[in-house]
Amino acid sequence: MSLQKLSLNKVFGGEHVRYEHQSEVLSCTMQFAIYLPPQTKKGQSLPVVYWLSGLTCTDENFMQKAGALKAAAELGLVIVAPDTSPRGKGVPDDPEGAWDFGLGAGFYVNATQEPWAKHYRMYDYVVSELPALIEKNFLVTDKRSISGHSMGGHGALIAALREPERYQSVSAFSPICQPTQCPWGEKAFSNYLGSQREIWLDWDASVLIAKASAHVPMLVDQGSADHFLAEQLKPTALQDAASRAGYPLTLRMQPGYDHSYYFITSFIDEHLRFHAQALLKSR
Amino acid sequence: MSLQKLSLNKVFGGEHVRYEHQSEVLSCTMQFAIYLPPQTKKGQSLPVVYWLSGLTCTDENFMQKAGALKAAAELGLVIVAPDTSPRGKGVPDDPEGAWDFGLGAGFYVNATQEPWAKHYRMYDYVVSELPALIEKNFLVTDKRSISGHSMGGHGALIAALREPERYQSVSAFSPICQPTQCPWGEKAFSNYLGSQREIWLDWDASVLIAKASAHVPMLVDQGSADHFLAEQLKPTALQDAASRAGYPLTLRMQPGYDHSYYFITSFIDEHLRFHAQALLKSR
Repeated sequence: MSLQKLSLNKVFGGEHVRYEHQSEVLSCTMQFAIYLPPQTKKGQSLPVVYWLSGLTCTDENFMQKAGALKAAAELGLVIVAPDTSPRGKGVPDDPEGAWDFGLGAGFYVNATQEPWAKHYRMYDYVVSELPALIEKNFLVTDKRSISGHSMGGHGALIAALREPERYQSVSAFSPICQPTQCPWGEKAFSNYLGSQREIWLDWDASVLIAKASAHVPMLVDQGSADHFLAEQLKPTALQDAASRAGYPLTLRMQPGYDHSYYFITSFIDEHLRFHAQALLKSR
Repeated sequence: MSLQKLSLNKVFGGEHVRYEHQSEVLSCTMQFAIYLPPQTKKGQSLPVVYWLSGLTCTDENFMQKAGALKAAAELGLVIVAPDTSPRGKGVPDDPEGAWDFGLGAGFYVNATQEPWAKHYRMYDYVVSELPALIEKNFLVTDKRSISGHSMGGHGALIAALREPERYQSVSAFSPICQPTQCPWGEKAFSNYLGSQREIWLDWDASVLIAKASAHVPMLVDQGSADHFLAEQLKPTALQDAASRAGYPLTLRMQPGYDHSYYFITSFIDEHLRFHAQALLKSR
């Protein structure tokens, strides 16, 4: 698992670096970005926040648009942003090239159906393979938190609900809270996981929240002016399920905010402080 | 001069809005972006920082990537980001479609040569027409500051040096400090202004700084790892000229930073505080 450096930018005294590596889990070459705050240059091991992006994104959107790196430098948080799907030669895409399925839309599940099963194993990649790679190659602790936006918010939630022992905290912006009951999720799950809907339930945060083996702090922000809110995102399904399960969810409806990075940037500092509190307490 | 709203995003309690309007100066339809901090909703008139972007950019790059809006909201600064050239049907481009001339590369001068003279009058647009439009249509004061990056840093510097009475302060990231003596500037000026090099001198910050009719505070940041530093940017020419003229320039070489938005985002808050100090003192 060797890393090839693609680019480096100094930012807020630290470094934003993009790497390429061969993923065994995904059977392809993947790119990711990492932000290393200035403290790492002084030999300090820092905890890591994993950021999962939404449909059509790559590792670049969050690093360029979220305005998160100032707070990351101040708080001493490494940030890792993976891509949103397997990529490259031989990786199948939506036959019609749709933006909401296939490339850029791995949905953070492990596909079981052909032709997706060989490459589309984004859950194992972001939850296991990538953290192992990061913890082997960078000056980081084994304390992790996870966050994301939209499809990536769904990814962050299911990761922390399926394997809570791996994370100190989880947060999400505008997550797809009930993918088994919305058009984006139904399209992705029927292709990646097949037609048996009961199998889908293992990848739906509003279902998993009742079965979580442990509870980690969970923060969700949702804009009220988000055009995808009613049809695709369904935060009340998550809230109702959390309430029934006694799960410690903080869901905040943010009036007037939409689905864009202008929403994310407005609250990302609060999310990073939320994660820092959990990560630094756990040291 | 009517404004057509293209989009609106709530951000840090304020609004990022994109507009289209017919420019008389440029003889074409132009788009710009404005950030209105939350204070404007409460009826407070705020001063304006104009941001001029670099080669290939539009109004969108700064608003999406600079991470400037949190500080703008806190300081109570409106930000206006124009496009970098005239656009649309009938506006000529570089015959070979080069990225450093023509569309996306207006260089903030008033062209005198054909076929550029009709549309390429970006100086008058950003210094006169656009501020008049902003001050007529939004809740802003007539106090202005100006800043920019690379080609836009050059634009900001020449605006404040040619018409210091219009600005309270000026700043720049990685500006083209001596466009008459670098490949980007020579290409643009010979096309827009013709072959007589003495005419070019009216658009070169390192020349204009000796003739400025008044001095406004000037802050320039330049990254030492910027690949364009030696050939295109030449900050020492500006520093030497400022020194000879007794002009109050603060030039900071920032070790390890490059030409990207990762550099801009690292120091934009300091620039906005610098402008706020000058703008709020002048009320």
